[in-house]
Amino acid sequence: MTITQPDLSVFESVESEVRSYCRGWPTVFDRARGSVLFDEDGHRYLDFFAGAGSLNYGHNNPVLKRALLDYLERDGVTHGLDMSTTAKRAFLETFRDVVLEPRGMDHKVMFTGPTGTNAVEAALKLARKIKGREAIVSFTNAFHGMSLGALAVTGNAFKRAGAGIPLVHGTPMPFDDYLDGRTPDFIWFERLLQDAGSGLNQPAAVIVETVQGEGGINVARPEWLRALADLCRRHDMLLIVDDIQMGCGRTGSFFSFEEAGIVPDIITLSKSISGYGLPMALTLFRPELDVWEPGEHNGTFRGNNPAFVTAAASLDAYWRDDQTEKQTLARGERVEAALAAIVRENPGAGASYRGRGLVWGIEFADPARASAICARAFELGLLLETSGPQSEVVKLLPALTITTEELDEGLRILDRAVRETA
Amino acid sequence: MTITQPDLSVFESVESEVRSYCRGWPTVFDRARGSVLFDEDGHRYLDFFAGAGSLNYGHNNPVLKRALLDYLERDGVTHGLDMSTTAKRAFLETFRDVVLEPRGMDHKVMFTGPTGTNAVEAALKLARKIKGREAIVSFTNAFHGMSLGALAVTGNAFKRAGAGIPLVHGTPMPFDDYLDGRTPDFIWFERLLQDAGSGLNQPAAVIVETVQGEGGINVARPEWLRALADLCRRHDMLLIVDDIQMGCGRTGSFFSFEEAGIVPDIITLSKSISGYGLPMALTLFRPELDVWEPGEHNGTFRGNNPAFVTAAASLDAYWRDDQTEKQTLARGERVEAALAAIVRENPGAGASYRGRGLVWGIEFADPARASAICARAFELGLLLETSGPQSEVVKLLPALTITTEELDEGLRILDRAVRETA
Amino acid sequence: MTITQPDLSVFESVESEVRSYCRGWPTVFDRARGSVLFDEDGHRYLDFFAGAGSLNYGHNNPVLKRALLDYLERDGVTHGLDMSTTAKRAFLETFRDVVLEPRGMDHKVMFTGPTGTNAVEAALKLARKIKGREAIVSFTNAFHGMSLGALAVTGNAFKRAGAGIPLVHGTPMPFDDYLDGRTPDFIWFERLLQDAGSGLNQPAAVIVETVQGEGGINVARPEWLRALADLCRRHDMLLIVDDIQMGCGRTGSFFSFEEAGIVPDIITLSKSISGYGLPMALTLFRPELDVWEPGEHNGTFRGNNPAFVTAAASLDAYWRDDQTEKQTLARGERVEAALAAIVRENPGAGASYRGRGLVWGIEFADPARASAICARAFELGLLLETSGPQSEVVKLLPALTITTEELDEGLRILDRAVRETA
Amino acid sequence: MTITQPDLSVFESVESEVRSYCRGWPTVFDRARGSVLFDEDGHRYLDFFAGAGSLNYGHNNPVLKRALLDYLERDGVTHGLDMSTTAKRAFLETFRDVVLEPRGMDHKVMFTGPTGTNAVEAALKLARKIKGREAIVSFTNAFHGMSLGALAVTGNAFKRAGAGIPLVHGTPMPFDDYLDGRTPDFIWFERLLQDAGSGLNQPAAVIVETVQGEGGINVARPEWLRALADLCRRHDMLLIVDDIQMGCGRTGSFFSFEEAGIVPDIITLSKSISGYGLPMALTLFRPELDVWEPGEHNGTFRGNNPAFVTAAASLDAYWRDDQTEKQTLARGERVEAALAAIVRENPGAGASYRGRGLVWGIEFADPARASAICARAFELGLLLETSGPQSEVVKLLPALTITTEELDEGLRILDRAVRETA
Repeated sequence: MTITQPDLSVFESVESEVRSYCRGWPTVFDRARGSVLFDEDGHRYLDFFAGAGSLNYGHNNPVLKRALLDYLERDGVTHGLDMSTTAKRAFLETFRDVVLEPRGMDHKVMFTGPTGTNAVEAALKLARKIKGREAIVSFTNAFHGMSLGALAVTGNAFKRAGAGIPLVHGTPMPFDDYLDGRTPDFIWFERLLQDAGSGLNQPAAVIVETVQGEGGINVARPEWLRALADLCRRHDMLLIVDDIQMGCGRTGSFFSFEEAGIVPDIITLSKSISGYGLPMALTLFRPELDVWEPGEHNGTFRGNNPAFVTAAASLDAYWRDDQTEKQTLARGERVEAALAAIVRENPGAGASYRGRGLVWGIEFADPARASAICARAFELGLLLETSGPQSEVVKLLPALTITTEELDEGLRILDRAVRETA
Repeated sequence: MTITQPDLSVFESVESEVRSYCRGWPTVFDRARGSVLFDEDGHRYLDFFAGAGSLNYGHNNPVLKRALLDYLERDGVTHGLDMSTTAKRAFLETFRDVVLEPRGMDHKVMFTGPTGTNAVEAALKLARKIKGREAIVSFTNAFHGMSLGALAVTGNAFKRAGAGIPLVHGTPMPFDDYLDGRTPDFIWFERLLQDAGSGLNQPAAVIVETVQGEGGINVARPEWLRALADLCRRHDMLLIVDDIQMGCGRTGSFFSFEEAGIVPDIITLSKSISGYGLPMALTLFRPELDVWEPGEHNGTFRGNNPAFVTAAASLDAYWRDDQTEKQTLARGERVEAALAAIVRENPGAGASYRGRGLVWGIEFADPARASAICARAFELGLLLETSGPQSEVVKLLPALTITTEELDEGLRILDRAVRETA
Repeated sequence: MTITQPDLSVFESVESEVRSYCRGWPTVFDRARGSVLFDEDGHRYLDFFAGAGSLNYGHNNPVLKRALLDYLERDGVTHGLDMSTTAKRAFLETFRDVVLEPRGMDHKVMFTGPTGTNAVEAALKLARKIKGREAIVSFTNAFHGMSLGALAVTGNAFKRAGAGIPLVHGTPMPFDDYLDGRTPDFIWFERLLQDAGSGLNQPAAVIVETVQGEGGINVARPEWLRALADLCRRHDMLLIVDDIQMGCGRTGSFFSFEEAGIVPDIITLSKSISGYGLPMALTLFRPELDVWEPGEHNGTFRGNNPAFVTAAASLDAYWRDDQTEKQTLARGERVEAALAAIVRENPGAGASYRGRGLVWGIEFADPARASAICARAFELGLLLETSGPQSEVVKLLPALTITTEELDEGLRILDRAVRETA
Repeated sequence: MTITQPDLSVFESVESEVRSYCRGWPTVFDRARGSVLFDEDGHRYLDFFAGAGSLNYGHNNPVLKRALLDYLERDGVTHGLDMSTTAKRAFLETFRDVVLEPRGMDHKVMFTGPTGTNAVEAALKLARKIKGREAIVSFTNAFHGMSLGALAVTGNAFKRAGAGIPLVHGTPMPFDDYLDGRTPDFIWFERLLQDAGSGLNQPAAVIVETVQGEGGINVARPEWLRALADLCRRHDMLLIVDDIQMGCGRTGSFFSFEEAGIVPDIITLSKSISGYGLPMALTLFRPELDVWEPGEHNGTFRGNNPAFVTAAASLDAYWRDDQTEKQTLARGERVEAALAAIVRENPGAGASYRGRGLVWGIEFADPARASAICARAFELGLLLETSGPQSEVVKLLPALTITTEELDEGLRILDRAVRETA
């Protein structure tokens, strides 16, 4: 697509080898709007990745942009630590009025350092403090973050090895549908809990994603989540739902666990909570769990006020009624139909698909196929990424605000990329 | 100062008890510019805290603001993961040209999650990976962050206890001047390293702040830092300087270790690196240490492009020559003279002071006195915070861009607060 | 049975509260021979506990006693560290000729500190050293010892809690028949190993008992053990069989794993290896695993030469042919028949039984029943203990040398105790 | 000395490479009496090692031997778990009457598994349980055992590396005279404890040897021990004295800490407690610390009754009056004089000596010299071992019952070996 080679020299000479996405998308991006990015040569890319779920309302969403520019122009407080500010107040009031109260939730809101991993660290600290136990149960193929606390409950062996120390205090349990489909749910987990001789250190909490995004778009059934919540209740474990990637409407409803009818004790939010891709993260918990001492967990950028402004604006614009949810589910059906067709029409690929709302995955028998498809899609102007332990799943995470035309265009490119990599 | 009580109700009812600074400064801030904040009732506060060192160029610095607004207005990429973008390229080139090359450094630049603690986590992971050892040596009263990896090398017992698990793999050594002044530097540390029977697990790295900000404004002498660098070299340990709070000009030079004439193997930067208080963090390391695999450490917000824009603008505006350094040192002398006078004129306070550049601390025999002074200063319109293990030190961290009039005003308020709390 | 109360005052006033068995058997034992103990008042007790499996050849077995007295009388070396001695040489030659070579095994013999837990510590150290990994897989209701290394792979929550630190680096897997009987063996374990995203730290080794004695007389089927050995081979994990309680003929063959036709990489032996109840322990391993440096694991009493003397004598006396094995299996059938009758004739007890060779357990629906039976048996002159996570199993561990008359006597007392506690 | 080569083949082919002492003493020992061993060819060796301190009353001491044979002949209980037995009662009463009461101690007695490391594991567990903290402070060059709990508080890097996991929860502090002699005692340790920002996890206990045997015969001064006891008291840490090697009269008094006038909270004893080299170990603690639940720590061989018999006999024979102590101190002066002469007369060796009672060390500038001396001594019929982190110290641990003639003979051989290795 490009004729002149992009100038990547400073990235290669100065930036660390740890850089990753830029290798699969070898160009220099410059501008973005909605579901479209442009590189510096003016080439257009349709975005089916949405900042790994951080851009649910698209790039530089104009409604949020206006609020942000106004705030910056009038010299609103930018960096606020955990001082009370008018921007934080507006966010808290909006979050309470639009998100919490309509769902009958009275969770307290903690502003952690503005990364998902920090929200998870705070959740785990709090759970351990409350229960006085070190052990946490997580699930196979979970992804919760890269700092040591969060990494210890993350499944990926490559990422775990990066720790450089043995990661302990976490025990994996099988995620929904992990075994053979005939093994009763939670038979192993509950047996361990019931048996004083099992060797399982009694867990303080269980941390779970309702859909595992990094783990390969593994979708937990509502009844599995309900059974998990029940297990936690019966065995005195706190239930933490990590809704960093699947919250903020990705699966349809604002929280991804709403469909299951459960209310977690602790919830982590990040990625799309600011709405504009600005760093922000929250940990929510039932009020009776708010046993923190002042400053017992903190972080320099926990008061990223521009993010509070766009966050409040996004809630105002998209969550005062159920239009966003309805539209997400409708768009999701369109994706599902397209994936079904791809699977059907490419029988040699050994493909299968799964998803909810606007998070979908299509898995291929040959893991290399998924990477090849993403590479071809890039050449065709579509940004797509893989996920799963062997990168065997092509992941679809379009913005919730994507137009049907853009959605169809992207699905057509995907279809073509699948065919052309056969 | 306020007549009507500020409306803090939503903070009290919805925000977690973990909130901290807002308790000492019970008002609702709205706007800020340079070294001045205004609350929603229009009251003016002079800022001697500067976002805990994140606002070295003041609030909403107009030069950086212009660059930021331009970027946002033209729909520059906001959220970029680790894609190559024009904003990142501009930052990398400027950082190389203005910071690294003039100092003869060829360190590679890693964009970590945009918090200081994440930069520290990356530094520790890398050191452990390179050396194949788990142990890290840190120093008494160190502060490196709140996620589990960084917290394990942080000294504060209250913060450590929040982990809810035993924090291991870190061993504290005495910071400069920690003991009696007659004990030779590093006598204990080096003896442990030399002796195969000492019981010290061989460290992968040593992590140090040149001035401990949270620990009580403890200033390491240049010769102590040089001896530490030499010790690391002789005993095959990597030297990590955590320059998150003291870098970006806080002590005068861009990096705080320049005065000592050392070049660390690994350096962490955050807080003021974006210049505008936007979340951003970097880990720098010698090129031969860049053994990361792609994606081995990552984070959703590691490509906070608006921060790259203001970061590049701040380097352009303040670090192309030595004016910032000279001005900082001159302002620092002004602070030192004022603190000397306060100590001299309040002999009953048992006070002493210390600092470098524009980071200063004044310690009181009665720890409660420091808090009382900060409380009184707030009433008088000055934002000041304490530090040290018993909050016994009043900390002065004004913006580097503070005017001499503002600086003198703040020092006069401090003087008055000291006297009025006697 | 006793008329005068035994004088237990010094035990109560000087010995720690940690003492345990003496509480269930409140008398002062004095002499013992074969399967019979006498207290200081001359009361006779039939022993169905055999030193928790340490007295497979009975108390003060006369053949071994003669060898021991001869050795002591002629001033044979008693305490030998790991010096070469004639007694150690005789043991090694006998062990090689009688145990190893006839079974086609060329395992190296390591003399660890003379306790089972020390043999396990050595086995785990060696496995971790060889594989360069920290993680060990153990099984539900495993018991491997009370020092921190062995305790971390032990299941019992009460014993684990005694550690006072979180026990890590061990992960429990379901022992044979732990789940519902319909779940395929090793489905969970193998899935974790195959999946790079499972979150299981790759294990250095698996440690298993073929029959879990402390865990409740849980008997692994031969095919389960074979599948486990195969799993270890396919996934590069060492297989450690802890044969401390079940080895030395307890299940019939000398090693308890012989029936399954497997040969473990590492084997621990203790309890009955000296034959006379003297402290002794061994760790055996394939010669290619003998990567120890001299003195890398040691212990003051690893050269307990009197134990080597009785150990060699016991191998000579009982293992030069297959008479011991045959007799054990025959006695076992006698026990099985009696237990079957008890279960049949006490339908209200909700009892079931299981065992192999001369290790048997009878489990009761009401855990308190098992303790009551043991208490009543003591009154009737029979020493019996419980096991299992809730002490719900009455455990039968008679000496292999018990006469059929003694065996029948004990089984009659058991039957009576069951009936009288209904 | 030997003409025919000893037959060591089975040791080389069957015993693990971990064997150690037998390498320095390449012969096969057969009989022993007092301070003399004989190999199978009848060669005589004078023993200055005494089973690493396990044979304070010599090999096969005739008084103890008589008691042991009588007990075995009359079929006294050999293996007793923690059942009450007449032999255990006799030991407890004797220990109370001869050891505890005359010293005004009311410590409870716990029978742990019969190895020193097990007694240490029990001590650490108990301290952690009582204080609810994980951290333990140990000292440079400490040796406490080889199971994971004890190894974590042991200094030697080679032995620590054998663990195969990172050893955590222990922090080393400088033993007496570790630094430059001008640094005040405990300045570092106490400062860490006083400072809430030091980063030291608050310790449950301190574990110390009064003389470090394996660490190089490092002798703590009484005033240093008193200051340590005082530090523990003031900072709510339990004081554990590991008297496994230095107790039972090695330094003169029965407990090695008596000279300092301190009474530890917890004491471990093993090695010479049985008197005859039989495996036995005790953990003693103040009665108010006896918070064990029954069976919370246990071990199969904790009731090694033959050892109780010889233990009681040794207390009876040697500790009813102060003759043993006086004789030990007198013999010690004889050793000291000889070592002083060796140092004086071999100025080129860079030697120095130190010791107490009958534990002495002579250190050489060249570590290889110490090993050479031991090798030459063996050829001359004297058993000597090295200690210290680089094996740079020749260690003298003769039996307390050694005759002056034997002592002088051994010292002459040592002198000759020093000269002949110059």
